[in-house]
Amino acid sequence: MSFRDRLLGVFLACAVSISVGAEQVQADEGMWVFNNLPRKQLKEKFGFEPTDAWIEHVMQSSVRFNSGGSGSFVSSTGLVLTNHHVGADTLQKISTAEHDYYKEGFWAKTHADEPKAPDLELNVLQSIEDVTARVNGAVEAGAAPAEAFAARRAIIATIQKESFEKTGLRSDVVTLYQGGQYHLYRYKKYTDIRLVWAPEFDIAFFGGDPDNFEYPRYDLDACLFRAYENDKPAKVEHFLKWSQAGAGENELVFVSGHPGKTDRLNTVAALKFTRDVRAPFVLDLLRRMEIMLQQYGQDGEEQARIAKEDLFGVQNSRKAYLGQIAGLQDAGIMAKKEAAEAALRARVESDPKLKAAYGSAWQKIEQAKKTHAELMVQNAILEQGRGFGGGLFQTARTLVRLAEENAKPNTERLPEYSDAGRASLELQLYSTAPHYDDLELAKLTDGLGFLTEKLGGDNPLVKKVLAGKGPAARAAELLAGSKLQDVAERRKIAAGGKQAIEESTDTLIALAKLVDPDARSIRKKMEEQVIEVERQAYGQISRALFEIEGPSRYPDATFTLRLSYGTVKGYTENGKPIPPWTTMGGAFDHANKHGNKAPWALPQTWHSHKGDIDPKTPFNFVSNNDIIGGNSGSPVINRAGEFVGIIFDGNIQSLVGDFIFDETQNRAVSVHSSSIIEALKKVYGAEALAAELGK
Amino acid sequence: MSFRDRLLGVFLACAVSISVGAEQVQADEGMWVFNNLPRKQLKEKFGFEPTDAWIEHVMQSSVRFNSGGSGSFVSSTGLVLTNHHVGADTLQKISTAEHDYYKEGFWAKTHADEPKAPDLELNVLQSIEDVTARVNGAVEAGAAPAEAFAARRAIIATIQKESFEKTGLRSDVVTLYQGGQYHLYRYKKYTDIRLVWAPEFDIAFFGGDPDNFEYPRYDLDACLFRAYENDKPAKVEHFLKWSQAGAGENELVFVSGHPGKTDRLNTVAALKFTRDVRAPFVLDLLRRMEIMLQQYGQDGEEQARIAKEDLFGVQNSRKAYLGQIAGLQDAGIMAKKEAAEAALRARVESDPKLKAAYGSAWQKIEQAKKTHAELMVQNAILEQGRGFGGGLFQTARTLVRLAEENAKPNTERLPEYSDAGRASLELQLYSTAPHYDDLELAKLTDGLGFLTEKLGGDNPLVKKVLAGKGPAARAAELLAGSKLQDVAERRKIAAGGKQAIEESTDTLIALAKLVDPDARSIRKKMEEQVIEVERQAYGQISRALFEIEGPSRYPDATFTLRLSYGTVKGYTENGKPIPPWTTMGGAFDHANKHGNKAPWALPQTWHSHKGDIDPKTPFNFVSNNDIIGGNSGSPVINRAGEFVGIIFDGNIQSLVGDFIFDETQNRAVSVHSSSIIEALKKVYGAEALAAELGK
Repeated sequence: MSFRDRLLGVFLACAVSISVGAEQVQADEGMWVFNNLPRKQLKEKFGFEPTDAWIEHVMQSSVRFNSGGSGSFVSSTGLVLTNHHVGADTLQKISTAEHDYYKEGFWAKTHADEPKAPDLELNVLQSIEDVTARVNGAVEAGAAPAEAFAARRAIIATIQKESFEKTGLRSDVVTLYQGGQYHLYRYKKYTDIRLVWAPEFDIAFFGGDPDNFEYPRYDLDACLFRAYENDKPAKVEHFLKWSQAGAGENELVFVSGHPGKTDRLNTVAALKFTRDVRAPFVLDLLRRMEIMLQQYGQDGEEQARIAKEDLFGVQNSRKAYLGQIAGLQDAGIMAKKEAAEAALRARVESDPKLKAAYGSAWQKIEQAKKTHAELMVQNAILEQGRGFGGGLFQTARTLVRLAEENAKPNTERLPEYSDAGRASLELQLYSTAPHYDDLELAKLTDGLGFLTEKLGGDNPLVKKVLAGKGPAARAAELLAGSKLQDVAERRKIAAGGKQAIEESTDTLIALAKLVDPDARSIRKKMEEQVIEVERQAYGQISRALFEIEGPSRYPDATFTLRLSYGTVKGYTENGKPIPPWTTMGGAFDHANKHGNKAPWALPQTWHSHKGDIDPKTPFNFVSNNDIIGGNSGSPVINRAGEFVGIIFDGNIQSLVGDFIFDETQNRAVSVHSSSIIEALKKVYGAEALAAELGK
Repeated sequence: MSFRDRLLGVFLACAVSISVGAEQVQADEGMWVFNNLPRKQLKEKFGFEPTDAWIEHVMQSSVRFNSGGSGSFVSSTGLVLTNHHVGADTLQKISTAEHDYYKEGFWAKTHADEPKAPDLELNVLQSIEDVTARVNGAVEAGAAPAEAFAARRAIIATIQKESFEKTGLRSDVVTLYQGGQYHLYRYKKYTDIRLVWAPEFDIAFFGGDPDNFEYPRYDLDACLFRAYENDKPAKVEHFLKWSQAGAGENELVFVSGHPGKTDRLNTVAALKFTRDVRAPFVLDLLRRMEIMLQQYGQDGEEQARIAKEDLFGVQNSRKAYLGQIAGLQDAGIMAKKEAAEAALRARVESDPKLKAAYGSAWQKIEQAKKTHAELMVQNAILEQGRGFGGGLFQTARTLVRLAEENAKPNTERLPEYSDAGRASLELQLYSTAPHYDDLELAKLTDGLGFLTEKLGGDNPLVKKVLAGKGPAARAAELLAGSKLQDVAERRKIAAGGKQAIEESTDTLIALAKLVDPDARSIRKKMEEQVIEVERQAYGQISRALFEIEGPSRYPDATFTLRLSYGTVKGYTENGKPIPPWTTMGGAFDHANKHGNKAPWALPQTWHSHKGDIDPKTPFNFVSNNDIIGGNSGSPVINRAGEFVGIIFDGNIQSLVGDFIFDETQNRAVSVHSSSIIEALKKVYGAEALAAELGK
């Protein structure tokens, strides 16, 4: 379960979510921010009182993978453990026709053998500061949405830049409770990341798509990177010690990671928009991408290799979205949401002061969702670039906008072009990740087809984009006329600023220029008529909740560091008890049950070392921690702050977790710490590496 | 290239097509009706003058597979040759977990070994009668569309019933030039069809989806059935003799078969509707089905077997539609259509009489397509049943409607319930084809999800259908409460008439009853506001063309028997000459080139007999005959009326053939007659069967 949404781009836009139900947080629900942990619940339920040092240690041992996932430091020598499927983006990018790291796995016996990721950025949270008052203070009371949006953008850019200049740390203002609170997150950043160890794809994703989101499971979904500083392994103060026993049944465990996005507390109108408009659109798009990538992969073995990681991501997202929409289409789940919302609204209506201040919020959101429905397709096509599939158009767009935005003051730029984010933007823009002409052609052809289908063949912009040709012929022409696959060319154009863009004869630069006025226009409408309206309305609801309940809730996930607590325990499915963990021996049984055929074919290394492996070693386990996509790779930690496992999936029952948490069957699935050590030692012969873990 | 649209159901509805461009038929374009063959062109270009006997012989040797395809009699003993992929529907239905005819192939050494198809109907055209005057005479001048539609339905039902009672032959009134002409087609019908021989899937569809619609090609896409009458092999008067040499380069060849549907002569407004509305909708639906079937097939080897033929059909359609939409999105192709239409309209406008009689037609069609766009989704979901995927809902619907329609006079019934078509309807309704609970569940779950997405979770009908549950839980409940998988139960309900329906507690019968008022309502709107409006408008255009040009055009394809002529010849692709045929030896080279891996793995029989096969034997060949989906299995015939090959595909350039014919690259792809004999003798050791062909 990877937080692939970030990669796919379309799906994150306009994530608006906040506490809106009247239901109280109960059970082990919650993705808690580190500056407001549920100390009371932990003490009452588990007798556990985390010290400040414990919290600081866990926070600074946790790592965010900006490619979309989580991880943790597990040695003083900069080792970072994450999922194989989180590392996949890098494994794919460093692979070639000759050496397929993604498929075959890898182990660097010396530091010199550790290959460098072309564009991976890791973030480690250093501090959180509440800047709510400053952000809200910059927006004049009664300002129109457009003005309010601009004012907020400006003060956020200013705060981020000040913080960056003062501390040198990556500084992001995070909107929590959408207008309820704004917090400044400061991260230490690592951009020299190298691969140390990865198992074969066949054991990392054992059982493939059929077993994905299923349990019992038998996956070694883990890999190790090493963070470097100044060309040397980073010396890390905070890292997780390795638990001797690993996770045990009924043990209290914590997950410290970066859940991507939840809509758990959205209003009913917003949930129905997702159910009836957005999720069906996204699913159609995902299926379209899946078939396109399958077709491309059929062209040959090398094409199959090239498409593999993209395809995995799309299939993973498709399965996750199917689970979500199924939940939303379940009248029982929606009824709970409706009841909770009705109760809160009744409470607000019953108090004249609350009613005057907050009573209009729900209707505003309902109206904003109607507008969102009208703008959604154009926004996806033009602004998010789905009508121009593939990476090179995005590169061209970035170059065109970079020149335009650089000419503006920092506070007036699109946020992704602000000074504070410049280094991260350039890491992506100048990435040396491999470029594949034929995959780019397949994606651009499909994108132009999608554009034409959705806007119509007679649309004036479509006609200009296609220039009298069909999508396939036009895509070939556009790619033939561009040099943007060459990083030096990108740097040259970026250095040339506005003049270079104006004078460029590059076909993709020309396309990006052609599309940009319409793209910016639709983005502006989204910002002013949807995002800002919702932000203000959710701000009202948030304040109503604070007044009624106090600050007892966690905000919806925002791909920022959260702590969830829970216990290792099995569950019951169709009347059958599901055990809390599987074993490494069970993997062999599971393979046999499926005739040892793909995707249940264990790698040769496992067959060769079957006799060496202790079959009773716990392999995967479940706990009732509250997680979501983006948590992939999160460490599972015991009371002592030690590493006991690594999150890699949720069971099929957890897929409604975007909207609602159900403790009875909702389970997080992890790789057990013991199996990682066992595999490193017995299967891969990496004794020295195993010894480095936790030290 | 199978005419799978028939199976998928959604796609045939409202096929309206007629000659509307001002372009003259040229080159070897044309799907000619047998009572208006292009004698002049054949004489002038090829010096060929078919005799009445030649025409009669070819007509009565040609066979329509009502499951969606074509074929021919190739022996006096009732042998019918068609494509493996046309026979696939039957091969799948007679297969079990123990014996997979579809995958493994089959050869019946004696008549007693020939397994019977559970629901296959073959039609052989006996005569064509022009009934235009009678049909038009039944519609009063100035009648409103609803009345006109009812009147036409009634007279057609009457004509069909009269003809059937008089001749005992299946009698279909076919609408040609949509209101330009109505012809009565009479067919001899065979419903006892047994399998004689089929090769393995791996050689029938060698190269799989990647090679589909590609050329050069190396497929033995052929199989043999035998028609039985009175439990004995049918004695057939008209069958094709087997050519000794087979098709030769530059030879004049004819294709006699049943092209399913073309929109070649649609108005520009209708083409744009297809481009922007219908084709994108169908493609999304096909991708949805493809992913659903893939997912189902991953559940195990038996599930993969069960899903295989469905999956093949969906993938084939998806690729065909992609080719079509790509053609429509090509501004060059659309410009040709626009120019032709503008010229015709100018000609009509320039003549006051023509203008008064026909000038309003194009606008009427444009309006009808707007209405069609509004109704399309609901029509697909409710009337065509896409919101209730799988076969059992269709069975329930048929039973519910049968009871209701039987109570009406024949002339007032929905056409599929008229007396003339009753036997064909019952063949399907009481089919003993196997039923798979889990596939049905997957399809119904997906269908209910589609329904909910498209109509919205708050739609009152959707709420009633889901009954408070999510799609998956509701689908399981619906299937658990139905006995319709049992053919005896179907017969019992059908025999019980209206009372049995009213009293039934079967959950699917209840669902069909619940949905039927809305489904019938949307169908009525489609008939009266779209189909009838278009029929009248295309009738006007058709008459305008007759007046201007005379009856020199062929009507668009309607899954009725057509003759196309052409020559065997290669073409040039990307500057590279593509030879007119491949060889059987080339198949081994092609397999080697792809590492002998699926889908390029030749069956073991081929490897075992490699030394016996003459590698120079022509295998597949291309000709510039004008064909489309539904032509699959059509015999390719020489001047002497002999069999020289069998159509099985079109090249990728032919996929725009739905709209426009381009002789330069558009090619039909056939299996060469020599390779069928060579394979039967050398690979399969079926000497006796080979000797039976053409005798």
